[in-house]
Amino acid sequence: MPGQNKTLEDLFLETLKDMYYNERKLLVALPKMAKAASSDQLCAAFEKHAGETEGQVQRLQQVFKMMKQAPKGKTCPAILGLVEEGDEVMEDFEDSPALDAGLLSGAQAVEHYEISRYGTLIAWAEQLGMNQAVQLLKQTLEEEKKTDVALNKLAEAAINRKAA
Amino acid sequence: MPGQNKTLEDLFLETLKDMYYNERKLLVALPKMAKAASSDQLCAAFEKHAGETEGQVQRLQQVFKMMKQAPKGKTCPAILGLVEEGDEVMEDFEDSPALDAGLLSGAQAVEHYEISRYGTLIAWAEQLGMNQAVQLLKQTLEEEKKTDVALNKLAEAAINRKAA
Repeated sequence: MPGQNKTLEDLFLETLKDMYYNERKLLVALPKMAKAASSDQLCAAFEKHAGETEGQVQRLQQVFKMMKQAPKGKTCPAILGLVEEGDEVMEDFEDSPALDAGLLSGAQAVEHYEISRYGTLIAWAEQLGMNQAVQLLKQTLEEEKKTDVALNKLAEAAINRKAA
Repeated sequence: MPGQNKTLEDLFLETLKDMYYNERKLLVALPKMAKAASSDQLCAAFEKHAGETEGQVQRLQQVFKMMKQAPKGKTCPAILGLVEEGDEVMEDFEDSPALDAGLLSGAQAVEHYEISRYGTLIAWAEQLGMNQAVQLLKQTLEEEKKTDVALNKLAEAAINRKAA
């Protein structure tokens, strides 16, 4: 399909597919990060967010349904890159006191990516008059922001100190 | 080097190399995005940030120097993924009224990634007592945040409306 016929709705749908791929990648990556973390608190934070991610996948499925589309992921190079960076840290800093600081930082980069993408999806859904989708996506955005704040507190409180 | 001997300083240096690679990729990507943008304002915003990025590269060089290290980039899969997503949008939405909305969204995802990474680097530099590095990195973080706010305003004001 030539680009000139594409609309904001197409762009919204493409980005929705990106995020569907993204969240399902994280369903695999987060438990792996939880297992690698040496701090119990960090492990618990990753496990909690893995649980939330399941709900976020379901919300995305609902938005697909509202658009009369089957839920479908589309390879999202950004999340692949972010997950690859996390894998590198797990490998290079295994058994290091700095491992948790690296895991935390990687997880925060993922949260920031998601906060940006959901913010965009919400703005576009508002523009497109998709009010129910806006409500669902806002719930997810709130969870992502809260996760980032929780990770930040963990980072400030203990992990960086321990790693120094 | 086994991971267990690695310290927070090693993690800081690895992340600094990531960001050096990152900013130099953006020196190439931003003018390309400016050229692709159909809105003059968006083009100007990308060009302005390309100029700032040159200063950010120089600040990173200064931090390397403080650590008595030669400035060196390290392939950063996350920025490669983010830039690839931007390239996809430029290709798939060429001549579409939604192109600028897509470019904007991609640029904001990059800004959020950088905001997260610089936030982390600053926290680690504080922990490591690298006060001069903290000051330099904070200048860059401020620029990234301002760029994100400027892009957000552009998005809200015009681009999304035009694309709908």
